[in-house]
Amino acid sequence: MGLARVLPILRWLPDYGRGALASDLLAAVIVTLMLVPQALAYALLAGLPPEVGLYASMLPLLLYALFGTSATLAVGPVAVASLMTASALSGIAAPGSAEYVAAALVLAALSGLVLVAMGLLRLGFLANFLSHPVISGFVTASGILIAASQLRHLLGVEASGHNLLEMGAALIAGLEHVHFTTLATGLAVWAYLVGSRRYLAGGFARLGLSQGAAALLAKAAPVSAVIVTTLLAWGLGFGERGVALVGEVPSGLPTLAMPSVDPALWSTLAPAAVLISLVGFVESVSVAQTLAAKRRQRIDPNQELIALGLANLGAGTSGGSPVSGGFSRSVVNFEAGAATPLAGAFTALGIAVATLALTAPLAFLPKATLAATIIVAVGTLIDLPAIKRTWAYSRSDGAAMLATLALTLLHGVESGILAGVGLSLALHLYRTSRPHSAVVGRVPGSEHFRNVRRHAVETDERLAILRIDESLYFANARYLEDTVMALAARQPGLRHVVLACQAVNVIDASALESLEAINARLRDAAIALHLAEVKGPVMDRLAHTDFCRALTGRVYLSTYDAWRALHDERATETSPAACGGAGLAGGEASRAPAAGPEPITGTALAVGRFRTHRGDYP
Amino acid sequence: MGLARVLPILRWLPDYGRGALASDLLAAVIVTLMLVPQALAYALLAGLPPEVGLYASMLPLLLYALFGTSATLAVGPVAVASLMTASALSGIAAPGSAEYVAAALVLAALSGLVLVAMGLLRLGFLANFLSHPVISGFVTASGILIAASQLRHLLGVEASGHNLLEMGAALIAGLEHVHFTTLATGLAVWAYLVGSRRYLAGGFARLGLSQGAAALLAKAAPVSAVIVTTLLAWGLGFGERGVALVGEVPSGLPTLAMPSVDPALWSTLAPAAVLISLVGFVESVSVAQTLAAKRRQRIDPNQELIALGLANLGAGTSGGSPVSGGFSRSVVNFEAGAATPLAGAFTALGIAVATLALTAPLAFLPKATLAATIIVAVGTLIDLPAIKRTWAYSRSDGAAMLATLALTLLHGVESGILAGVGLSLALHLYRTSRPHSAVVGRVPGSEHFRNVRRHAVETDERLAILRIDESLYFANARYLEDTVMALAARQPGLRHVVLACQAVNVIDASALESLEAINARLRDAAIALHLAEVKGPVMDRLAHTDFCRALTGRVYLSTYDAWRALHDERATETSPAACGGAGLAGGEASRAPAAGPEPITGTALAVGRFRTHRGDYP
Repeated sequence: MGLARVLPILRWLPDYGRGALASDLLAAVIVTLMLVPQALAYALLAGLPPEVGLYASMLPLLLYALFGTSATLAVGPVAVASLMTASALSGIAAPGSAEYVAAALVLAALSGLVLVAMGLLRLGFLANFLSHPVISGFVTASGILIAASQLRHLLGVEASGHNLLEMGAALIAGLEHVHFTTLATGLAVWAYLVGSRRYLAGGFARLGLSQGAAALLAKAAPVSAVIVTTLLAWGLGFGERGVALVGEVPSGLPTLAMPSVDPALWSTLAPAAVLISLVGFVESVSVAQTLAAKRRQRIDPNQELIALGLANLGAGTSGGSPVSGGFSRSVVNFEAGAATPLAGAFTALGIAVATLALTAPLAFLPKATLAATIIVAVGTLIDLPAIKRTWAYSRSDGAAMLATLALTLLHGVESGILAGVGLSLALHLYRTSRPHSAVVGRVPGSEHFRNVRRHAVETDERLAILRIDESLYFANARYLEDTVMALAARQPGLRHVVLACQAVNVIDASALESLEAINARLRDAAIALHLAEVKGPVMDRLAHTDFCRALTGRVYLSTYDAWRALHDERATETSPAACGGAGLAGGEASRAPAAGPEPITGTALAVGRFRTHRGDYP
Repeated sequence: MGLARVLPILRWLPDYGRGALASDLLAAVIVTLMLVPQALAYALLAGLPPEVGLYASMLPLLLYALFGTSATLAVGPVAVASLMTASALSGIAAPGSAEYVAAALVLAALSGLVLVAMGLLRLGFLANFLSHPVISGFVTASGILIAASQLRHLLGVEASGHNLLEMGAALIAGLEHVHFTTLATGLAVWAYLVGSRRYLAGGFARLGLSQGAAALLAKAAPVSAVIVTTLLAWGLGFGERGVALVGEVPSGLPTLAMPSVDPALWSTLAPAAVLISLVGFVESVSVAQTLAAKRRQRIDPNQELIALGLANLGAGTSGGSPVSGGFSRSVVNFEAGAATPLAGAFTALGIAVATLALTAPLAFLPKATLAATIIVAVGTLIDLPAIKRTWAYSRSDGAAMLATLALTLLHGVESGILAGVGLSLALHLYRTSRPHSAVVGRVPGSEHFRNVRRHAVETDERLAILRIDESLYFANARYLEDTVMALAARQPGLRHVVLACQAVNVIDASALESLEAINARLRDAAIALHLAEVKGPVMDRLAHTDFCRALTGRVYLSTYDAWRALHDERATETSPAACGGAGLAGGEASRAPAAGPEPITGTALAVGRFRTHRGDYP
């Protein structure tokens, strides 16, 4: 069992049968047909030689099959990670140079280390820093940036930039040099791919294929575009006519090698590696969970961190760029019936065969074909209606999404996502900086208490009961101080404040400090502070604190108990629990007088009057 | 009223009387006596010429008197801000050089701009980023660093460094050059100050002074040390004997001048300015609130941001270093009876008089005297027991405090506080990444539901009711997905999941996305998702969303309603509220069959079966 936790493959391999093998092999064939052009295209997008994309589609897939917990997640080069790779490497070397490729391997290895470390330290929750609006805005902006960056390959011009403004300016400047054969090739492929998305599945179905099989086969349309344009380029001598081709791809499988260990390079790439890791992890887990749920399977997010991390380490040591789980390939893998992670391993074998067999013809593949493939593929990333939907649901979430989107487009991927994270944290702090609370009064004749602003309830000018509707922690603790002190300043006759804590699950050290400050300040104003309805675990912690010893008032089991003790004259009839052990104080009332109706004057109240010591109780 | 909001002085000046004037004048005299040596000492600590400390004690105090809301906060140079100033400027120029002083003014002006901007944009809540353990660890470490940094003046050696290790190494290396007259002066002053803290107030009291007056007068002990050692240095020719003296202080008041507007310098100093502003603001507001509460007064944190910001802008344009509210001087100001912020304005006048009259004698003041003053003063900052106390209360808060303390000591003030903020945010996310929730069952024969793990309750293998005890937002939304999907994977007969939302105050866009994912994934597994006890404001928001339209189940007013509908055979007797308007669905049961006991199979469930449209209701 211990080894199976580390190597999830051991859980299902013993039961692996012929049926699963057939399903996995079929899925692998279809995914391989999708992955060959995508691997080449995403390498182009990342500014890397085509073989880097192929290398990233072998060892990483094998490693994920060993360590991953999703049966259907298709790991490999993906669009967003490739864009982020291009952005991270842009300042380091010229795209395509040996130095640039070496840095890409370092980036993959670093991402792998980050992910494995997060998995071992169970830090998966850090992915929560990326709230949904931030991820959504970022992915939409990435899709737009990616499409814009590929226009130059469609137009056959030189143009680059790290944001939409730079790209636009470079493209406009390059318009006079548009290469028409390139443009014609690109537009034809684009039109074919868009058309095939709409009509190809239907066409296959009319030829007698089942709906599912037809839809799957239609996903392989880019392969046919690659084959046809490669043949055209070879037959018509596109290369001599000035069409940019993929060019010579080294034959053979990648060799294993340690990536460069240059501390300066590592520290330069570290922030980008963290961002690529987090974004890749969030997207992969989300796809994997959605697909797993369809079969009532589960994936283990912490194990996914380790599996994705090892996949990236594999990429970095076998000549590949950063990898993660791809959305479209995973869906195809699922629909093609992949039964186990072995489907991914078989895909890796398929890519290896392609790499060995196809390097000679691939030299003739026009880059415009790949660019058109990318542009069509990233269409699924762009979700503009989400902005309107999110804005309508919540202004602050909408603002975080828009800020991430705008900054990513106009300044770059890293500043975009960092600003989004910062803004959503700040908005979160803002939202939670005011804990929901309400001054409550007694529903006449009952034991119920309701908001004084909304209900006709009984109140007492010497007594304020504040119901706190949330846990208290550093983000909202100071506002509680303000709220209570405002109550005290507003109500001159106030003698008792009761905090009703039925909704408080946690009081952190900052909030404890605030409660101490509230207690001390109320004491200086000759007002006693009481608690009511404190939950067991919260009370257990409070019992050991100075706050509890210094508390000027009592801890009541219920708000009604507090009301009876502090409002009614019959104070001694109540049985308040004393601080130091909620519910322990059955006979407490006889030992110390309850904080009753007698006026409290001066700060003498503070010292010892209602003080209880833990030692008081058996 | 409008102008009084901007200029709080207009609220109380019309009623200003002779009694308040006398109180304010007395407080100003005592605070001036404290402030003269402190202003010189904190300038020394910041690596600045002595007059910078005096200049920071004039215009800023006048501006705070106009704009501040605390009657007793004593603004001016303080220990922690001076340490942070020294750290921020260390890489910019040689301490004491004209360039260094110019950068200090820029830092003050920048801090002022940051504070004013935060005040105008109501961003005071951002100070919540500094949780109490982080501030506490940081202040303790600052106190230790400050004391260590002053040892060199006591020993009369050259030694500097930005963390405890560097300082320690430099001091040990300098031990062979110890200057004994300097050391004797410093130790004598230190012993006198420590002794005066213990015994001077008692001595004055025995001379017939009242307890309070004696305690206040004892606070002026540093002034007598300054006078005596200055006279000694002048009479015995300390300067010729090699004792470091303050040296010539330019006579006269500061001149107003714009600080340098060098964009490179501004952007270098900006992060430090933000940190100094936040730390200064948090400390000032905490002192001001504590003192205000003692008189049942209130301070307005947003107005404090503006007042402290203008005070810092005043410092930056009148030759001063960054300022904030000082703890010890504010307490003395309060105890001496300061009635209005005019006490601060009178203190500014006192400092102006001192600056005009005392520059000649101050030239003979030994630096060792100031160093001893600082070392004794920062003793109040160091609170080592707080570490143990916080650790005992909460491991995670204790860890954040220790990390801040250790990093500040061993690496420097800026990395210390940034690491503390990062760690406490991460720990907060970790703590909140798992929303408190419990699977509940019915207390037999009642309408109450309790945790199945703690109580003997009725359950149903086709039905799981999950009570959520917190608001749902980006930090905990993904864990909810895991929790629900784990339930579904564990309970093969499951057909209905009910989320009981009585404690949910907010569902943010990330959590909404998670609910949509949960709904879709449960639908794929042929399980219906229902909600119960959704609060009014939360339901109002949900009603407009796609989630509500896609919800496979119903929204019930109470958990018991859900139980009756989904568990009992008499499903049609219940009256569930439909999504799109809680409580609107009185006659709904007749329009669509409730999600009753009939088995739900296949994904057909998802489409339309229990779908409701907003237009359905009048």
